[in-house]
Amino acid sequence: MSSMFDEAEKDPALSDDAFARLEEPLRIQLLKEQYRHLKLKDRALVIVVAGIDGAGKGETINLLNEWLDPRHVRTLAFNEPTQEEKAYPSIRRLWQSIPPKGSVGIMFGAVYMPILKALSKKKVNPDKLEAMISSVRKFEDTLVANDVQIIKLWFHLSREAQRARIELLLSNPSTAWQVDKNDEKVFKHFDHVRQTGQRIIEATDAAHAPWTIIPSADKNMRIFRTAQSVLTAFQQRTIHVPPSHDPSSPNKRPRSRHRLDKLDYAASVSKENYDQELMQWQNRLSTAVREKSFKKKSLVLVFEGQDAAGKGGAIRRITRALDARQYQTISVTAPRPFEMDRPYLWRFWRKVPRQGRIAIFDRSWYGRVLVERIEGYAKRSAWQRAYQEINDFEMQLAKRGAIVLKFWLAVTPEEQLSRFRAREHSPYKNFKITPEDWRNRRQWPAYTKAAEEMFAKTDTSHAPWHVLPANDKHHARLEVLKRITQAVEQA
Amino acid sequence: MSSMFDEAEKDPALSDDAFARLEEPLRIQLLKEQYRHLKLKDRALVIVVAGIDGAGKGETINLLNEWLDPRHVRTLAFNEPTQEEKAYPSIRRLWQSIPPKGSVGIMFGAVYMPILKALSKKKVNPDKLEAMISSVRKFEDTLVANDVQIIKLWFHLSREAQRARIELLLSNPSTAWQVDKNDEKVFKHFDHVRQTGQRIIEATDAAHAPWTIIPSADKNMRIFRTAQSVLTAFQQRTIHVPPSHDPSSPNKRPRSRHRLDKLDYAASVSKENYDQELMQWQNRLSTAVREKSFKKKSLVLVFEGQDAAGKGGAIRRITRALDARQYQTISVTAPRPFEMDRPYLWRFWRKVPRQGRIAIFDRSWYGRVLVERIEGYAKRSAWQRAYQEINDFEMQLAKRGAIVLKFWLAVTPEEQLSRFRAREHSPYKNFKITPEDWRNRRQWPAYTKAAEEMFAKTDTSHAPWHVLPANDKHHARLEVLKRITQAVEQA
Repeated sequence: MSSMFDEAEKDPALSDDAFARLEEPLRIQLLKEQYRHLKLKDRALVIVVAGIDGAGKGETINLLNEWLDPRHVRTLAFNEPTQEEKAYPSIRRLWQSIPPKGSVGIMFGAVYMPILKALSKKKVNPDKLEAMISSVRKFEDTLVANDVQIIKLWFHLSREAQRARIELLLSNPSTAWQVDKNDEKVFKHFDHVRQTGQRIIEATDAAHAPWTIIPSADKNMRIFRTAQSVLTAFQQRTIHVPPSHDPSSPNKRPRSRHRLDKLDYAASVSKENYDQELMQWQNRLSTAVREKSFKKKSLVLVFEGQDAAGKGGAIRRITRALDARQYQTISVTAPRPFEMDRPYLWRFWRKVPRQGRIAIFDRSWYGRVLVERIEGYAKRSAWQRAYQEINDFEMQLAKRGAIVLKFWLAVTPEEQLSRFRAREHSPYKNFKITPEDWRNRRQWPAYTKAAEEMFAKTDTSHAPWHVLPANDKHHARLEVLKRITQAVEQA
Repeated sequence: MSSMFDEAEKDPALSDDAFARLEEPLRIQLLKEQYRHLKLKDRALVIVVAGIDGAGKGETINLLNEWLDPRHVRTLAFNEPTQEEKAYPSIRRLWQSIPPKGSVGIMFGAVYMPILKALSKKKVNPDKLEAMISSVRKFEDTLVANDVQIIKLWFHLSREAQRARIELLLSNPSTAWQVDKNDEKVFKHFDHVRQTGQRIIEATDAAHAPWTIIPSADKNMRIFRTAQSVLTAFQQRTIHVPPSHDPSSPNKRPRSRHRLDKLDYAASVSKENYDQELMQWQNRLSTAVREKSFKKKSLVLVFEGQDAAGKGGAIRRITRALDARQYQTISVTAPRPFEMDRPYLWRFWRKVPRQGRIAIFDRSWYGRVLVERIEGYAKRSAWQRAYQEINDFEMQLAKRGAIVLKFWLAVTPEEQLSRFRAREHSPYKNFKITPEDWRNRRQWPAYTKAAEEMFAKTDTSHAPWHVLPANDKHHARLEVLKRITQAVEQA
């Protein structure tokens, strides 16, 4: 029966002479392309290294570091997650490791580890497996769509060659460590591992993130084919765009459009009730986040809305109920250069809270589908894709126990104008009003349209939008506190 | 008996009327100064918040976030260190939190916590206490000398006012959490805590990092005095320079000058012996870093030397013996803008290894006293101060179990020239040779002088320099491997 491993299992070899003739032009070409890549800085390259044990993955990484200019290559290796890492979504550390544009990251098959583990069990839960594969595919799709090129190398050899290689390693006490218990198991169950590899490759092969099988029994051949694959990746002029996913999240909540029109902007609360209720809700919130059950949860709050909608004031009413060691407020402004060199979600992944903590975003990743869309900072295809990427991102947070709540504080244009004027006349608030605010104000209809589309596409049960009238600041603040408190209490 | 707390313990108050008159001009002035500070970007401001419990430290932080533009203010609050944090020097998380120039960091008294704890014990080990205080002072000195302004606020009130305030907090279940067990202890032992505070303030007060005592019983007064202190800090045109420490480290090893002259540049090894010994040392190293005892250690390797001295080749001979998940190689190049906004050691603190891991620096923090000195990127006072700062830094690493080894690979100018020529003619090495290398070569005597001074001032028993002749690459590589292996085996 023919298989994708046919060639590799023939253990093809390259003579030293043949290799010597190939080596120099290959190295020159590789370096030349690496420098072009570095200068162009239009993408990062991630090389995923996976495959059968004993096939020389570690040596290959050394080789790439030697053949390429190592100053622009980083090895992304992951150990078993630490306790600290386990307090975050598991994919966070992969996100954090993404190399900047112009450079190369060599990623040990970490992304595939959970799948490999699942497949190596006797009984595989097909739903769980499907979910893991889908999660890996989404991760890769998001990277590729955001200028991270991915190639995946699977190192393979025949049963006999593997046996010989493992025995060689085991025979020397100082290389025996390279064969861990798992490897010995692998060694016993070649067929099973082979089949597992095949399934992973089939499930995750894509034009934009392709697998290449590297025949690994012979060192010369392994080096040559690896270098060739990397060279081909560098030489590719544009990276393939992943097909767009179904934009509807499974958790999307059916909601009418025109949510902003339908709000009761006259909603208000008396000063007296406000003071009393504020204290009451702050007390409840303060208690709720100190419950023992919250230690396995986290809270991610997003605040969006037109300028002067009262985001800062609402946030301060929350933080006053909190212990400064438990929360962080993140004011999101324009991305800095080193952030621009990564996929736009990268900088938010760096700020997600660990279990037991609270992160409050004053503006957020929704900038992608708001200001970046309206001002043209993001291409149409990029912000359109972002709805799905954001839903996936928030799903990752929710899966690790995050309560994700998103608030849109809605004011009418008239109310905004009067606040702008008041700010201009307040000596310690006029810093809050800039020419940009007036420019944004002229874009009011565009923001309304973008916001409505955003609500429609990203209002999910795992991360719902709370669209609140905020012409009366007190009313809005109480509503915010109430919704947060109730969500935490229910969770 | 008169004390520094006399005024604060009179619990001075400010009437609402008086406060109302003061508030507006103060807020305007504060904001104006914050923006000047942001625009000037010549320093960061760290406000240390400490003091007696129940004095309203948390409220004060909220206040500063409200009065200042919060987008440029970050709260630096630290919980009990996590397991992960404990695997690093304790001061690392403080270093990592340093805000960039132009912005403000509000730091809960974390730095002082260990001292407070030690002092609150019945029996205080005076040597340990002295060491802790000295460590805090060094930390502050280093920050201030590197453009981080520090002011320290101590919130204080009378015994009666504290009692009243704590009882008020305890009476409400939703504020009672603010009083933890420690606070109740504090409440019982007012005198002791008062005395402790006095000792800390006396021990760590300095013109460049001064303490201000804030009378805190009355809210208006507390706000007014806090805002005043921050305003004064902003208004200070230049920051005080800390006095320079005794540059001699207690661990400095007496060594002759002219170490480079005295090397045996003819030292070499035959190809045959090289191959055999290389494998032998790699095996030993490979085994040593997998010993159980290494889990509580870490390894920090620094490689310096003239261009083309063979740093990269030596590093690769080490990494081939290591598991890619255990080590990281860090190629140090010119600092990026966000790194320039922090003290120069900041970016290296981000790369120090946790226990059980290995960090290999291809060039390092010694750039400060080499290229930055020679090219004039650092002021004379800055690089002269750096010797001590570096010794302290390495001491912090060593105290947490790091084996710190520093290698200078020494080649003769003739050997360098022949390697430059060879590189120029090697199609896959010519990327390694740039006009900068030729320029550096012309600075040979300056580098020699700087290197000798560096050896003399930073060769310590906790982080020794290994100055090795490297005209014969094989010989140098073996020496490096040998020294590392022996150091790890001994540790």
